[in-house]
Amino acid sequence: MTTQYGTRPTMKDVAARARVGLKTVSRVVNDEPGVTPATADRVRSAITELGFRRNDSARMLRKGRTASVGLLLEDIGDPFYSVLSRAVEAVARFHGSLLFTGSSAEHPQRERELAMAFCARRVDGLVIVPAGDDHRYLLPELAAGTAAVFVDRPAEQIEADAVLSDSAGGAREGTEHLIRHGHRRIGFVGDQPQIHTAAERLRGYREAMAAAGLPVDPDQVAMGPTDPATVAAALERLTSGPHPVTALLTGNNRITLEVLRRLPALPYRPALVGFDDLELAELLVPGLTVVAQDPAGLGRTAADLLFRRLDGDTTPPRTVRLPTRLIPRGSGETVAPG
Amino acid sequence: MTTQYGTRPTMKDVAARARVGLKTVSRVVNDEPGVTPATADRVRSAITELGFRRNDSARMLRKGRTASVGLLLEDIGDPFYSVLSRAVEAVARFHGSLLFTGSSAEHPQRERELAMAFCARRVDGLVIVPAGDDHRYLLPELAAGTAAVFVDRPAEQIEADAVLSDSAGGAREGTEHLIRHGHRRIGFVGDQPQIHTAAERLRGYREAMAAAGLPVDPDQVAMGPTDPATVAAALERLTSGPHPVTALLTGNNRITLEVLRRLPALPYRPALVGFDDLELAELLVPGLTVVAQDPAGLGRTAADLLFRRLDGDTTPPRTVRLPTRLIPRGSGETVAPG
Repeated sequence: MTTQYGTRPTMKDVAARARVGLKTVSRVVNDEPGVTPATADRVRSAITELGFRRNDSARMLRKGRTASVGLLLEDIGDPFYSVLSRAVEAVARFHGSLLFTGSSAEHPQRERELAMAFCARRVDGLVIVPAGDDHRYLLPELAAGTAAVFVDRPAEQIEADAVLSDSAGGAREGTEHLIRHGHRRIGFVGDQPQIHTAAERLRGYREAMAAAGLPVDPDQVAMGPTDPATVAAALERLTSGPHPVTALLTGNNRITLEVLRRLPALPYRPALVGFDDLELAELLVPGLTVVAQDPAGLGRTAADLLFRRLDGDTTPPRTVRLPTRLIPRGSGETVAPG
Repeated sequence: MTTQYGTRPTMKDVAARARVGLKTVSRVVNDEPGVTPATADRVRSAITELGFRRNDSARMLRKGRTASVGLLLEDIGDPFYSVLSRAVEAVARFHGSLLFTGSSAEHPQRERELAMAFCARRVDGLVIVPAGDDHRYLLPELAAGTAAVFVDRPAEQIEADAVLSDSAGGAREGTEHLIRHGHRRIGFVGDQPQIHTAAERLRGYREAMAAAGLPVDPDQVAMGPTDPATVAAALERLTSGPHPVTALLTGNNRITLEVLRRLPALPYRPALVGFDDLELAELLVPGLTVVAQDPAGLGRTAADLLFRRLDGDTTPPRTVRLPTRLIPRGSGETVAPG
């Protein structure tokens, strides 16, 4: 990874920019205690601004590392995963590591092929948004020393680190928000139920409805692929018939987008809370109320955990859950009719 | 890249799905003539749906290949580049090749480091969105047989393949559109002038203004970084003073986004044409008129060209220019006051 061109920012430069001592920079870089959060933030900002990287090459080689990691996503073209990727790339870069990327397109077989192809290139570790429901195929690789952190969705059938959004909690909060605005008949349009995040969000929705004593009829829920035709059919079903919903919780950015495109054609406008934030969401009229995830935080936390493992952390696998955030902007605050 | 799991779709499966003969599939796969565009489209759809890939491994190894390519972007987190990446990944996958990705963040030094790091991993080829203005550092790699295709912006100081949008033509068309709606004082807010696409779009804007006999005062043009503060200052400058603009052409998706966020705070609403399409653009009120590029087409064409080079195409370097498309949606069709 080392090249001969130009001059590299040093730890000294970072210390000067952040107005701290060298030792403080070293502590932040090596994730050691004894630095206040505010100071650590300042050091990290200086690191980003200067483009500082640890020179890990010598250490890497000593450990038999290739200084590369594989990032396996559902779809690099999806804004959620592209922001997650940017964060993983930034952490990898900081550690002097290159990044392989690949998209599974929600096919377990493709996930497995890509993961094995990355391993065949002897990546030091994998950050995986899994598509499959059985990750035992990774066991020989993990035993051989490859690190793996799952992100967005957990590993199945093996014990592994995972960094997840609080999907159930977020969906619960979004549903409670609609209930607070007087809605009783609230619909949920989610992704395919075998996807972990989709199932968790459905669970959160059901829990909030149950806690409020509200029944959930089968015709209030639609789970399926997120292509335009399927979402349109779901929306049609939930908003017609004798008991149309007065409000909707949509399960991810792709579903929300399709619902937004179809709203003008509906005979009435249900209140809407979308899971995942969208660019321009605040510029719509009404603004789009969302349960926002933190895709950059997911990517950063997963990559940090991966490099901690590569640095020798052998504590048991852990699951980190990042909170979601409800952002009211108008579409979810319409009061229910009647 | 080959793994032992599951069954792979074959050329036969593709032929059956597309309802054509094996020979036709082979022609499409090998880019040979004699297939109508409609049939070729059907074959390509079947290839995508089935996830068919050529088995290039044996051929690759024979040629001393590593079956990996490096993709160097400005920012993987930008929706424009994430869609471009998805297209490059699909072509690479089709050829059985893995993808390294990295973001230069518009730093020439980082571009160079990443490109050299990819080359040190012996990638077969590079697809590069360049940040720098001197690519002679690549000459030894190119001489050693590494292929390189530039995309979005051309190579500088070396002869190399490039796949570009018609930035000047697109900006000309967007400006003419505003002129046709009666605007005479039209502003242009662009990215930093040393960026090729920014300079080309400024040129197209100036050409359209000159062709219509309209003067361009210095205070109608703002070129600079695309961070919120800089764009806000530019917008403030162009819309205040004795001769505020009545219409705006914005130079890329990030600038358009910032301008949209600031519009509500302006004393009046200038007509707006944005370069690059945005998700949700048609759902804004008024809808956002854009000059749309084809990021998927850029990525696909660049990657196709790269693999053609790897397949032995030794014709001189070429520049492919993809057309842009004006999409009127409301914001650019406001008639000028007076």
